[in-house]
Amino acid sequence: MQLRPEAPDPLYIQLRDTLEAEIRAGRYAAHQRLPSERELSAKFGVSRMTARQALLEMARNGAIYTRAGKGTFVAEPKIDQQLQALTGFSQEVRARGGRPASRVLDAYVGLPSPDVAVQLRLSSGSDEVICLSRLRLADGLPLAIETAYLPLSLCPNLLEHDFTAESLYAVLEQDYGLRLTQAEQTIEAALASPRELELLQLTPPAPVMRMQRLTWAGTVPVEYVVSAYRGDRYKFRSVLRAGAG
Amino acid sequence: MQLRPEAPDPLYIQLRDTLEAEIRAGRYAAHQRLPSERELSAKFGVSRMTARQALLEMARNGAIYTRAGKGTFVAEPKIDQQLQALTGFSQEVRARGGRPASRVLDAYVGLPSPDVAVQLRLSSGSDEVICLSRLRLADGLPLAIETAYLPLSLCPNLLEHDFTAESLYAVLEQDYGLRLTQAEQTIEAALASPRELELLQLTPPAPVMRMQRLTWAGTVPVEYVVSAYRGDRYKFRSVLRAGAG
Repeated sequence: MQLRPEAPDPLYIQLRDTLEAEIRAGRYAAHQRLPSERELSAKFGVSRMTARQALLEMARNGAIYTRAGKGTFVAEPKIDQQLQALTGFSQEVRARGGRPASRVLDAYVGLPSPDVAVQLRLSSGSDEVICLSRLRLADGLPLAIETAYLPLSLCPNLLEHDFTAESLYAVLEQDYGLRLTQAEQTIEAALASPRELELLQLTPPAPVMRMQRLTWAGTVPVEYVVSAYRGDRYKFRSVLRAGAG
Repeated sequence: MQLRPEAPDPLYIQLRDTLEAEIRAGRYAAHQRLPSERELSAKFGVSRMTARQALLEMARNGAIYTRAGKGTFVAEPKIDQQLQALTGFSQEVRARGGRPASRVLDAYVGLPSPDVAVQLRLSSGSDEVICLSRLRLADGLPLAIETAYLPLSLCPNLLEHDFTAESLYAVLEQDYGLRLTQAEQTIEAALASPRELELLQLTPPAPVMRMQRLTWAGTVPVEYVVSAYRGDRYKFRSVLRAGAG
């Protein structure tokens, strides 16, 4: 693979693209050490500054990570998640062959905030909601914080379940006959807050993907979820069609 | 609107949610000054530190912005864009009643990088591509950087058009008979690179939404686009269905 100084893309971008293509092609495996700046500059005939810039860009993309004094390593590929299928976290992690787990951060019954009340079509002064906030892990690694609000009237006693192990969507279907049929979701990029940095074990500044999802069983709004996913571990995939939307 | 010290959510989160709900309800308009920390602390009976934390959280979400010495102002609502309809930037901005424009950052014909070649099903050593990189603006404000790669064989002389004013998708359809039918897109949250910060007029650290999109006309891959959208100006919406994907 030759870099081309005469091409319009700067050399560090060409080097970044080359290394990322080599990673995708399996030339370097996840957690394998990459060549050092010095080795890259010799191998590709570029300055050490160019090699450093390429590695910085790759770290910014989440393609590699650095261990102080040890070098630069290939990150695991990002989790590639469909944005069109309505599934829960546990189901997704299992579908990828992983082991889902949760730490319950908060679980209570109370009056909803005005925002949650509007989303769930409740009266904010009288209709109580269940709030279940969980840190979601796959194979022991924290990936997301999910805070779900559900109308208490739809699923009384929900919090008697142990949500460190059980899937909320499975319980809703099995115990309450609530088969979730569709959801509307927004996602946006944001900087992790101090609490998100701590729970998701990130080093600031770090990007997160924030989501709001309203989930329905037929015509009944069942769940409003606010989540933050680690930006360095997720990408979201969707299919677009002309004339859709 | 009363805050409830006994509720599980910390007071600064309750205050943030309250102010954001008031903005959504139209109580404060875009670019209107919010009450100061001192005024908020008096009005809601919280400490100035709590008021400051609430405002920090809102600034982090892109809901408000700060002008040094002048106070805190309500940001424009984020652009709410469908992730299921295949449209171009110009068309989207016009549909929202805005005025789209572009600054051409790069426009050339050359050999593709291995990554671009794989995406467009080209031979990286011989099939040339057109590269068109643009800063996309709406009403004079920079919102995104889009770099598109297209097989030269599909649209020779494409670069004779003036893409500061013309829509790429309109030219592809009118001049080359390439009606774009579907696309596959991934999106991820990232920190803006120094170049993105400068072009998008952001203050570091700032989140961006990175996209890769492969667009097809029937069974022919026509365009591979890599984009960065301002995280503080965009949210993306999609509908999820059980059993889809």
